[in-house]
Amino acid sequence: MTQRISMAHGEGGELTHKLIKNVFVRNFNNKEQSRLDAAALPWYQNEIVMTTDSYVVDPLFFPGGNIGKLAVTGTVNDLAVSGAKPIAMTAGFIIEEGFELGDLREIAQSMAMEARLAGVQIIAGDTKVVEKGNADGVFINTTGVGQFHEQRLESEAIKEGDAIIVSGAIGEHGVAIMSAREDLGLMTGLQSDCASLNHLVEEVMNHVEGIRVMRDPTRGGLATTLVELCEDFKFSAELVESTIPVPMEVHGACDILGFDPLYLANEGKIVLVVDAAHEHTILEAIKKHPLGNGAQIIGRVTSCKESSGRLYLKTPIGTTRRLHRLPGMLLPRIC
Amino acid sequence: MTQRISMAHGEGGELTHKLIKNVFVRNFNNKEQSRLDAAALPWYQNEIVMTTDSYVVDPLFFPGGNIGKLAVTGTVNDLAVSGAKPIAMTAGFIIEEGFELGDLREIAQSMAMEARLAGVQIIAGDTKVVEKGNADGVFINTTGVGQFHEQRLESEAIKEGDAIIVSGAIGEHGVAIMSAREDLGLMTGLQSDCASLNHLVEEVMNHVEGIRVMRDPTRGGLATTLVELCEDFKFSAELVESTIPVPMEVHGACDILGFDPLYLANEGKIVLVVDAAHEHTILEAIKKHPLGNGAQIIGRVTSCKESSGRLYLKTPIGTTRRLHRLPGMLLPRIC
Repeated sequence: MTQRISMAHGEGGELTHKLIKNVFVRNFNNKEQSRLDAAALPWYQNEIVMTTDSYVVDPLFFPGGNIGKLAVTGTVNDLAVSGAKPIAMTAGFIIEEGFELGDLREIAQSMAMEARLAGVQIIAGDTKVVEKGNADGVFINTTGVGQFHEQRLESEAIKEGDAIIVSGAIGEHGVAIMSAREDLGLMTGLQSDCASLNHLVEEVMNHVEGIRVMRDPTRGGLATTLVELCEDFKFSAELVESTIPVPMEVHGACDILGFDPLYLANEGKIVLVVDAAHEHTILEAIKKHPLGNGAQIIGRVTSCKESSGRLYLKTPIGTTRRLHRLPGMLLPRIC
Repeated sequence: MTQRISMAHGEGGELTHKLIKNVFVRNFNNKEQSRLDAAALPWYQNEIVMTTDSYVVDPLFFPGGNIGKLAVTGTVNDLAVSGAKPIAMTAGFIIEEGFELGDLREIAQSMAMEARLAGVQIIAGDTKVVEKGNADGVFINTTGVGQFHEQRLESEAIKEGDAIIVSGAIGEHGVAIMSAREDLGLMTGLQSDCASLNHLVEEVMNHVEGIRVMRDPTRGGLATTLVELCEDFKFSAELVESTIPVPMEVHGACDILGFDPLYLANEGKIVLVVDAAHEHTILEAIKKHPLGNGAQIIGRVTSCKESSGRLYLKTPIGTTRRLHRLPGMLLPRIC
């Protein structure tokens, strides 16, 4: 039977993982990478890092942002969590025939404003147009380059007892997108958390030591992101559910729609694994920044053997369950 | 009246030029750039250059290539003509739900093979999926970084009498795409010229001097590309129509469909402005490379005043007419 791409292939979970591994990584022959995320250029002592993302968020305008703002913050954050200072980015637009020029202008203005806030230059661009019905408004690709901070991440040093920190409340972007989709009929006052985190990361990296690794829990949410971290760096970890900051509106929306906040996308949060000896200093440094004032320690690394790579959740009633990647469909076109 | 994006906004001609200038360059605030093409990073003595392109070619598979091969060669060539050695690129995929996995695999394999030929690493990627009917098979963005060759282009030195060289026959990509579109019913044996030109450029730059500036005449064709060069570098030029290499099949197809070969896209050709004192050495160096063996001198720079910026064509019957950018619609989704 002919195998075909399904929506779930784009959700950042198990199927996306397999698609990238089997079709792209295998062909592009990128050593042992299981993902094709931010990567160091084979150049200048590997000081330069590069990352790419295409944005197909639906709807294009949502509470707290639009596709343009998201296209800048998303790529800025990918660079930031790799431990780099974002320097410049490119922007490629695929526009559907008939799209309103006024909307395009507003999107470009949002990009420009967010790029200024983040201190990143948009240095090159490209515009393509396809016939009505062959795209959905506008799709944007941004590709960023950055330079690693002098202080490097200590991913090799991950060990039992390391703390897991999230920089604030989770699930807001996911719920904001859901509430902007008319067909779901969901009313909340929640805004997307979409924001550039590079200044927060820079501030923290400049003043503290002990950061092992960072990620931005976007598609697939906090759970999928941490499962990937566990697998990539071969450690197991346990999250304490009661310590994970989930806003009431996110809980409410999830209850109505049957979603799990741990799998909802975030666009303005980072999750960090840090040395327990420095966890309080790091937590305080994150909390000092306006974008990190809801930061919490939410779990710990429980083992670091070769065979590790599992993520567990301790529930309020004392049971423990294993968390996996987002298994299939949840919410398509979240970013 | 609400202004809307039309197909002509994507064809690389006058409307694309205005869209990029008014919406993107104005907002992204890139100094005096009239385009958003390959640009030097504000970094490392401006040694690093970056360029981005999204590919929406229709059909995805055509004589001589497919969207994957094109996505690599196109970005490699953008770097090459800016005088840089391509180092690495990223690849972002937007895939329509229901797209055949086998086709995606074939496209990825073509990209991998072409990247190896060009000596470029695909170091990072991204995959998004949109619902059936919200894209057209697959769209690919590639963004490349390169390093300027030691020998720099002498664009400041452009002067009257400089020769204009094209590296081979024009119009092949355009005709190959047309013939692959069933609705046009055009039968030709022509293949797209799509090829990575970085080795040709490197060979030439390493062995000759006197290259003022280079471009790849893709969307909008040779005429639009040269009009942009004339405007960007403030010179006027005259092409001699009888010296421009146009294959018989391209002439034939153009006669049937009412197209002008000068406006058809090429994906494996460069056009160069060179010092007349070195024109023969440069021409010979290009011809020595298999991808340049059809190279010809096709015109000259006729003036270099501030008020210049015009392109003329001397026809075989001795008249001269001015060439402009591709004015409106010709052939959408050529790349």
